[in-house]
Amino acid sequence: MTEFLEVISSDELRRRLEGFCRMSPESISIDDAIGRYLAEDVVSPEDLPEQPRSTVDGYAVKANDTFGASESLPALLRLTGSVEMGKQPDTTVQTGAAVQIPTGGFLPAGADAVVMVEYTDRLDSTQIEVSKPVTLRANVLDQGEDIRKGAPLLPSGRRIRPQEVGLLAAVGITKVRVFRRPRVAVISTGDEIVEVERKPGPGQIRDANGHSVAALVRACGAEPTCLPIVPDDESALRHTFENALEHYDVVVLSGGSSVGMRDLVVDVLTRLTNIEILAHGVAIRPGKPALFGRSNGKAIVDLPGHPVSALIVAQVFLAPLLHFLHGAALERGPLGQRVAGRLSTSMHSTIGLEEYVRVRLERNAAGVEVHPVFGKSSMLSTMARADGLLVVPAETEGLSAGQTVEVVLL
Amino acid sequence: MTEFLEVISSDELRRRLEGFCRMSPESISIDDAIGRYLAEDVVSPEDLPEQPRSTVDGYAVKANDTFGASESLPALLRLTGSVEMGKQPDTTVQTGAAVQIPTGGFLPAGADAVVMVEYTDRLDSTQIEVSKPVTLRANVLDQGEDIRKGAPLLPSGRRIRPQEVGLLAAVGITKVRVFRRPRVAVISTGDEIVEVERKPGPGQIRDANGHSVAALVRACGAEPTCLPIVPDDESALRHTFENALEHYDVVVLSGGSSVGMRDLVVDVLTRLTNIEILAHGVAIRPGKPALFGRSNGKAIVDLPGHPVSALIVAQVFLAPLLHFLHGAALERGPLGQRVAGRLSTSMHSTIGLEEYVRVRLERNAAGVEVHPVFGKSSMLSTMARADGLLVVPAETEGLSAGQTVEVVLL
Repeated sequence: MTEFLEVISSDELRRRLEGFCRMSPESISIDDAIGRYLAEDVVSPEDLPEQPRSTVDGYAVKANDTFGASESLPALLRLTGSVEMGKQPDTTVQTGAAVQIPTGGFLPAGADAVVMVEYTDRLDSTQIEVSKPVTLRANVLDQGEDIRKGAPLLPSGRRIRPQEVGLLAAVGITKVRVFRRPRVAVISTGDEIVEVERKPGPGQIRDANGHSVAALVRACGAEPTCLPIVPDDESALRHTFENALEHYDVVVLSGGSSVGMRDLVVDVLTRLTNIEILAHGVAIRPGKPALFGRSNGKAIVDLPGHPVSALIVAQVFLAPLLHFLHGAALERGPLGQRVAGRLSTSMHSTIGLEEYVRVRLERNAAGVEVHPVFGKSSMLSTMARADGLLVVPAETEGLSAGQTVEVVLL
Repeated sequence: MTEFLEVISSDELRRRLEGFCRMSPESISIDDAIGRYLAEDVVSPEDLPEQPRSTVDGYAVKANDTFGASESLPALLRLTGSVEMGKQPDTTVQTGAAVQIPTGGFLPAGADAVVMVEYTDRLDSTQIEVSKPVTLRANVLDQGEDIRKGAPLLPSGRRIRPQEVGLLAAVGITKVRVFRRPRVAVISTGDEIVEVERKPGPGQIRDANGHSVAALVRACGAEPTCLPIVPDDESALRHTFENALEHYDVVVLSGGSSVGMRDLVVDVLTRLTNIEILAHGVAIRPGKPALFGRSNGKAIVDLPGHPVSALIVAQVFLAPLLHFLHGAALERGPLGQRVAGRLSTSMHSTIGLEEYVRVRLERNAAGVEVHPVFGKSSMLSTMARADGLLVVPAETEGLSAGQTVEVVLL
């Protein structure tokens, strides 16, 4: 068996993965930017609003003219015009006057506050009564009050959500620089693996891993490409790996569940030029034989051969790595919503291994019950029956029935 | 002002939204199916595995031959061959014999269990010692044990995750029927609104809402199309709405923050033929004037005019509706990961209105602190500064500083 480096903890692996550099930046339309991460600070080129605007439907006034107004003794103001949406106000508010203004309307000159229509009474076409005083700048959004020209608008690293798109659009920014999506080569290896479209011959199985890993890569916002299946042949493997490292940012390998086949893949990997093995053996279950490497800044992830282990290692380490490469902080995997629940049964766990237990959730009157999924660990159907993963820390000996645990929904 | 229907609760609105029908199904490749929802039950066309397979590296044996074996008294077996990956085993295991088998290898005839290599010792090229007994079918995944031919594989309504893709691929299913993505027309209305690319003239503002709502629609897995901005003109509005209802599944309107402009839009909407108003006025803050309607099964959502209110109503109701149309259960919005934290300051809340408070999270040694975002509610920048929304139920009078609250991350 080839050199098996020391087994490292999942935390140590995460530290090493943080050594990768983010993808290079690219400039894209704000309409394509949802879920991407800013690669630079964005400064506002304009004030927002560009002129003072009313935040209510009402009357633009001089605040002073409403001083002391009440229901029993309303202030009487002359109605001298109205502000139209989409037009520059053409009237000036004089002392003792009021100009009708809609929400969002630009404050006319002379006015320094807006009275809400609810606190006014229109007597006729030329007069209104105001039954409540307003303070200076009341119901007015001042020039630059929302966003100031030249001020930081959004920081580098910020994930773009609908509100960031709105903010950028509001100040006229139509393109942003974000980190490029990682391009990921997904390679399945093994003499027994056939394309999904084919009927497996005797002793053969279909390439389930390639498709599930590619789906996970896509769900992480990266761009998967499934390369042709590679047989267990040293020169074919080396050629494929070298080629993939040249054209992709991340190379993910799966297949080779037997020691002999993994040995061959690991052997070819470790003898690539410029390869640095970051981890070969991680203190986790399942997934211990996972291998992580780097070559000229490109990431190589050799998933364990068992389809279930492969998918779990992909959820726990590959998904956070892809998000990291493309701008996020390196988060602790698996990623997903966290739900607390009561464990339905006691479980033994091995000290020294971080374990990922497939669980089903049952919601009942008492709350959420967490049930480990039954079935042999090599069964793919157990993953489909799982709502999430329960992470049992390495230093934990076991969990007791009734204990509150946290589950990450997949 | 046009007829303002009775204000309904957010729960009542959700009940009414559940009356919409899901999108029609379409057949797509499993490689494009991540995040989509199955529109039919899927039955497995094959057994998985198709023949019994070993789940470990070891030796295929007759379990009976290992009975009583121990380290001090190992069982001696003849090594009569080996199983190669990707090939049908060509040997038969006789009594007293063992055949080497890799993980995933197909069990040769005659064998009924596999001994793990760790419990064996290879004496020479023809003999091995077994130091631990195995039970019948030990380390074997039997034909159909993972998935049985003709058995339910995945239920209708299931969201497709990487593991579902893997399971489908494993049994040779390359296409699935899922609900179509909703096609959503996003329409901004208002004389003052100009395209983002243009420099607003006096009194004008850019169409921030259209872009942020389209981004949210895309993030929900639906397909947004931004139609040209419509001025405040009755016939232009009616023509646009009728046209949009003909070509899209959902029509989302924004703009018109003033009462007058909203009146015009609502007036045109309510006079469309075949229109059914589901809600005009919802007991929420912000967002009370939101309107929801249905026309020939198509959904119409008229967002409030304030950009912040528009985005919040979109997060709370439009996002769950889009997920629902496209296969999910109708969830309580806003959607997103939920985080518990301690409220930093006391807050008043109005009984009878469900309130959505923009909050920032601060993580420190004591846990998560939840801070309401300061700034006028009409400021778009407050949404970008918010990490999430705190939902204050309608029946709550206020929240106290130090109280534990749940925040939905946006």
